Amino acid sequence: MRDFLKGAPLSALAAAALAGLLLAPTVAGADEGMWTFNNFPSAKVKQAYGFSPDPKWLERVQLASVRLARGCSGAFVSASGLVQTNHHCARACIQQVSTAEHNHIKDGFTAAELKDEAKCPDMEVNQLVQITDVTQRVNAATAGKEGDAFSAALKEVQAAIQKECTGGADDTRCDVVELYHGGAYNLYKYHRYQDVRLVFAPEEDIAFFGGDPDNFEFPRYDLDVSYVRVYDKDGKPLNTKANYFPYASHDANEGDLVFTSGNPGRTERLDTVAELEYERDHALPDRLLYLAELRGILLQFTSQGEENGRIARTKLFTLENSYKALYGGLQTLVDPALIATKRKDEAELKAIIDADPALKQQYGDPWAAIAKSVEHFAVVATRYDVLEGGRSFTQSDMFTFARNLVRAASERALPDGKRLREYTDANFPFIRQRLLSNSPVYPELERVLMRMQLVYMQRQLGPDDPLVKKVFGNRSAEQIADDLVKGSTLGDPAERKRLLEGGQAALDASTDPMIRFAKLVDADALAARRDVEANVAAVQQKNAGYIAQAMFKVHGTSIYPDATFSPRVSYGAVKGYEQNGQHVAPFTTMGGTFDRATGAFPFALPESWLKAKDAINPSQKFDAVSTNDIIGGNSGSPVINKDAEVVGLIFDGNIQSLGGDYGYDGSVNRAVWVTVGALKEALAKVYHANRLAKELAGH
Amino acid sequence: MRDFLKGAPLSALAAAALAGLLLAPTVAGADEGMWTFNNFPSAKVKQAYGFSPDPKWLERVQLASVRLARGCSGAFVSASGLVQTNHHCARACIQQVSTAEHNHIKDGFTAAELKDEAKCPDMEVNQLVQITDVTQRVNAATAGKEGDAFSAALKEVQAAIQKECTGGADDTRCDVVELYHGGAYNLYKYHRYQDVRLVFAPEEDIAFFGGDPDNFEFPRYDLDVSYVRVYDKDGKPLNTKANYFPYASHDANEGDLVFTSGNPGRTERLDTVAELEYERDHALPDRLLYLAELRGILLQFTSQGEENGRIARTKLFTLENSYKALYGGLQTLVDPALIATKRKDEAELKAIIDADPALKQQYGDPWAAIAKSVEHFAVVATRYDVLEGGRSFTQSDMFTFARNLVRAASERALPDGKRLREYTDANFPFIRQRLLSNSPVYPELERVLMRMQLVYMQRQLGPDDPLVKKVFGNRSAEQIADDLVKGSTLGDPAERKRLLEGGQAALDASTDPMIRFAKLVDADALAARRDVEANVAAVQQKNAGYIAQAMFKVHGTSIYPDATFSPRVSYGAVKGYEQNGQHVAPFTTMGGTFDRATGAFPFALPESWLKAKDAINPSQKFDAVSTNDIIGGNSGSPVINKDAEVVGLIFDGNIQSLGGDYGYDGSVNRAVWVTVGALKEALAKVYHANRLAKELAGH
Repeated sequence: MRDFLKGAPLSALAAAALAGLLLAPTVAGADEGMWTFNNFPSAKVKQAYGFSPDPKWLERVQLASVRLARGCSGAFVSASGLVQTNHHCARACIQQVSTAEHNHIKDGFTAAELKDEAKCPDMEVNQLVQITDVTQRVNAATAGKEGDAFSAALKEVQAAIQKECTGGADDTRCDVVELYHGGAYNLYKYHRYQDVRLVFAPEEDIAFFGGDPDNFEFPRYDLDVSYVRVYDKDGKPLNTKANYFPYASHDANEGDLVFTSGNPGRTERLDTVAELEYERDHALPDRLLYLAELRGILLQFTSQGEENGRIARTKLFTLENSYKALYGGLQTLVDPALIATKRKDEAELKAIIDADPALKQQYGDPWAAIAKSVEHFAVVATRYDVLEGGRSFTQSDMFTFARNLVRAASERALPDGKRLREYTDANFPFIRQRLLSNSPVYPELERVLMRMQLVYMQRQLGPDDPLVKKVFGNRSAEQIADDLVKGSTLGDPAERKRLLEGGQAALDASTDPMIRFAKLVDADALAARRDVEANVAAVQQKNAGYIAQAMFKVHGTSIYPDATFSPRVSYGAVKGYEQNGQHVAPFTTMGGTFDRATGAFPFALPESWLKAKDAINPSQKFDAVSTNDIIGGNSGSPVINKDAEVVGLIFDGNIQSLGGDYGYDGSVNRAVWVTVGALKEALAKVYHANRLAKELAGH
Repeated sequence: MRDFLKGAPLSALAAAALAGLLLAPTVAGADEGMWTFNNFPSAKVKQAYGFSPDPKWLERVQLASVRLARGCSGAFVSASGLVQTNHHCARACIQQVSTAEHNHIKDGFTAAELKDEAKCPDMEVNQLVQITDVTQRVNAATAGKEGDAFSAALKEVQAAIQKECTGGADDTRCDVVELYHGGAYNLYKYHRYQDVRLVFAPEEDIAFFGGDPDNFEFPRYDLDVSYVRVYDKDGKPLNTKANYFPYASHDANEGDLVFTSGNPGRTERLDTVAELEYERDHALPDRLLYLAELRGILLQFTSQGEENGRIARTKLFTLENSYKALYGGLQTLVDPALIATKRKDEAELKAIIDADPALKQQYGDPWAAIAKSVEHFAVVATRYDVLEGGRSFTQSDMFTFARNLVRAASERALPDGKRLREYTDANFPFIRQRLLSNSPVYPELERVLMRMQLVYMQRQLGPDDPLVKKVFGNRSAEQIADDLVKGSTLGDPAERKRLLEGGQAALDASTDPMIRFAKLVDADALAARRDVEANVAAVQQKNAGYIAQAMFKVHGTSIYPDATFSPRVSYGAVKGYEQNGQHVAPFTTMGGTFDRATGAFPFALPESWLKAKDAINPSQKFDAVSTNDIIGGNSGSPVINKDAEVVGLIFDGNIQSLGGDYGYDGSVNRAVWVTVGALKEALAKVYHANRLAKELAGH
């Protein structure tokens, strides 16, 4: 599953720190690259495939593509704001609109009429409308600064640029994107849409047929699609007549050139050796071990009754997906060949700098500086990660609400440029949507997650840590979790609204135990974050910027930046590959699905498919692979042909693509997608979703 | 917790294979070494501490020491067969004699009279009575052989030697121990005792005070003791008048020389670089990830009601202990310094061989041969491990019974020397005891474990694996686990006895689903094992033997063999150490326990201690550390003074000792033990265990 599971925005830094924070540029081989719209290698595509996307083509693709702000991609596919994305990208929404009585994850969802389309409580859709280069302004603001001062200046200038860009409008989103990790800063201006409604979703059993065992594998038989609709301010379907991808009348064939337009989340293709070794030896194993334990807890929890399954399986699903992807990344890193190559590349570039007194004077030894920052991170990483990062209490929705409320009160009282990034005026609407959403909260699951996190915190920081002592006092993890969840009213959106609007005074007056708990840990969490921002992130940003600039001097602009969960285009061809000495064909068929089905989870087909078996064209292409270079975050990306028509829907990469964080190997790295023919066939023959089918056909 | 958790004997090979199977010798620094009784460095001890253990002293220590065959150590401490060991070493027994009504893990156990001593269903105690060198006979049998043939010949000669040694007597146990991994083979002859009864155990809350967070840490406040009694064939307490350690009248002091006598399980201090890298990159991470997931499952399971906690916490406890130990080992291996040193040592020894044409002719390049076997293992390891090794269905007791019954029927029909090791006449009593024991089986836990293993198998081998397809058919993991556990009668010892005695005919007639399942997977499991035995283990045994022989030529006998879960002696001094810039004193006090207690698990004291607070001497030394070189398996080892009197009871190593698998650092590596004074104080003041106290005082 190629979604980029960002979690709350406040964990973005955590993710970045874990990942080493270095997004360095790389010279692209054939079909390689996640290209920005303002630096697309049209000439290279022309040379390889005979077609040169022109600026108009690129603009059209840019405007018809969307980002799902909580971690996926999508595309407008009708004139009325209809968005095609993955089932797993809308999964949170599908679950949120479910109840104990109506489980739409299990049974699917079809809105018979427009009025039946169900509001997704916290989905946000972004459409990129403008890119502006702001490198000079950013560099001027940070020039000559280090550590804390660098970090503060960067934050301040970014906030200022973003605020100017939005002009205070909540329906505009502006992100200063660090490309080539500090080699360039571009301002991305988006339309921000928060009224998004669920139109259609198939049953989980076919959307994720094969489950975890088949995830990241091919051949594959998944209908991983959902449709949502963007509504405008007046509550009407958004008019997207000018900017959408029509469905192609024919499927792509083997060898065809295809493009994807989406938002790859994060790659670390030219992290320094020091960063990669840390990732291999500490960050990835520790993260995987944490996920494995949480997986065990959720596996057991979900097995305790159908309702437990309903409320926790989305979390389990998300986790298993991350786990498999990270495990694949680890396998790539323990292969000594990869780091050996990086070491060589690093030495070569360093020699170029060292040989040029001007460069040497300007950049010094950025690799050594980064290595030192990694050493510092190694010391503080556990505390950072457990309190503020990827292994923190933010697993719990109620805790996340509490933390957001506590911080919103204090941060939003500060000048915009002094706030934590996610609380600036430009960024806050994203958090606010979640705080005010009526998505359900499940106390029993919350209790289990809080208990797990408390045990984990005690284990990782040790029982003698002063904060651990303060948190535990004379209670056990079980008792604390019980008290927090039973005593809290943060599951109620009205209460969250009251606390958000009441600001610091309301917070101070609150006796809600989860609010008090979030306050109790906040000073330590923020201190850990400030330390990492100043002594790890700032050092890496500054020095990786130097490395990037040096690379520009050597390679010019024939390079693409590492992924940053911002819009990118990749190109490639429909193509099979060799695996264990066997050729894997680029297509599966819908008929093949029935051969693979055993009747038992995760290889059970839904009733609708069993019923429709005879109606379905067995030789209709189902899933496909192509050489497009994608990564987590690209889930839901449209696959389009030269005419910018949809021929497919990205939902995964193959197992060989899991090393894509660190490099691209065109011989085996494949994007996995549903063909447009299968989408049409399923809507017509299985779901009889005529309203939707008509809309997709342009009627 | 320094126990050596072997699991079923059939997983011993798994453990060995995982660990790289190489037990190479090393030259010992000060206080370093797990010495055999027939090669103890008395002169070195004399030089360092002014005392030279003589053969008589060593013999006395040997005979008063015992091995707990399922993974621990102990010592006779009275004339009537009383054995002192750890609470965690008798934990399985304490749980087995518990019921839903009487939870002795929680409440402790005291046998008021001899008749109240409770039979441990499957404890086996071994007393080493004789060591014989059989190197020549073994080497003659395997000379000139490779792979399968080597493996078969080794198995056959070992079985023959062992069978001759036991003379068919089940109360004699004989093990051919590979020392210096093939540098020498010694025959260890033991008395085997299977009638062992529980005499005393404190409450878990004080035996394991501090729980997982404090495990492998110091300062420490644990009363990790239990007493069991060995009974003779007539059901009378064993007469051990000639061979026991009396309790010392005074505690040891800082700086005192102390010895430990126990059974360190496994070290890999001179594994080759290829083996260590495999361990670091694959074996340890995969094992840890498996344990982390199982931990999550058990954490959630045990939180579902008190009875679930009672039946599964021992398993969770065992797992958490392994996890922390293995994680410590991984941290040692990712430190590049360790492997760099090994690489240098390896190059030096290789240079010596290469420089000597005779040696070169005899040994070739054993490191290259081992590296090749590691490459082979890398390919087959997952399948081996999931079907036959450390991540297999043997987590389930019912499956283990089924497998043992299936294999007993086929293997015991073969000539002794052709059988799998654990089914030879000399070894089988160990399995038979477990099969026929009346220890309780918990179906709900069994179901959870089987489901987990099925999901894990499907994930690791993939849904297209032919065996996975056969196992799953059209059922889900959940359904299969339900069917297996609900339908099986293997929880009943009478049924197991019937099947064991009925042999192949009874097996063939059985419709028990667990038996059928064990049969279904057995061919694949055995094939995986045979492959590893022939192409990994045999290659490593042969070539590690060469390396060992080369080391003998260079270092003589001033070296000790890697640990092999056979009796060893280590020496050292009571001594603190520096940690994070602070001095850690070598003793804690009983009074300190009350300061550390919070009242909440795992820092809650039992009622008995709270009541006795005023009676306990607060300045009585409680736990202690010394420089003795120990490892998992040493749990329950006595700590003795020069007069062979008990001054303590080993139960742990400090966190710095977790690298002990790979090396010993005397500056920080410490053994952790309960002082004899604390044992006496607790029995007298907390437990009023007068019968036991009198016996220990020699009355």
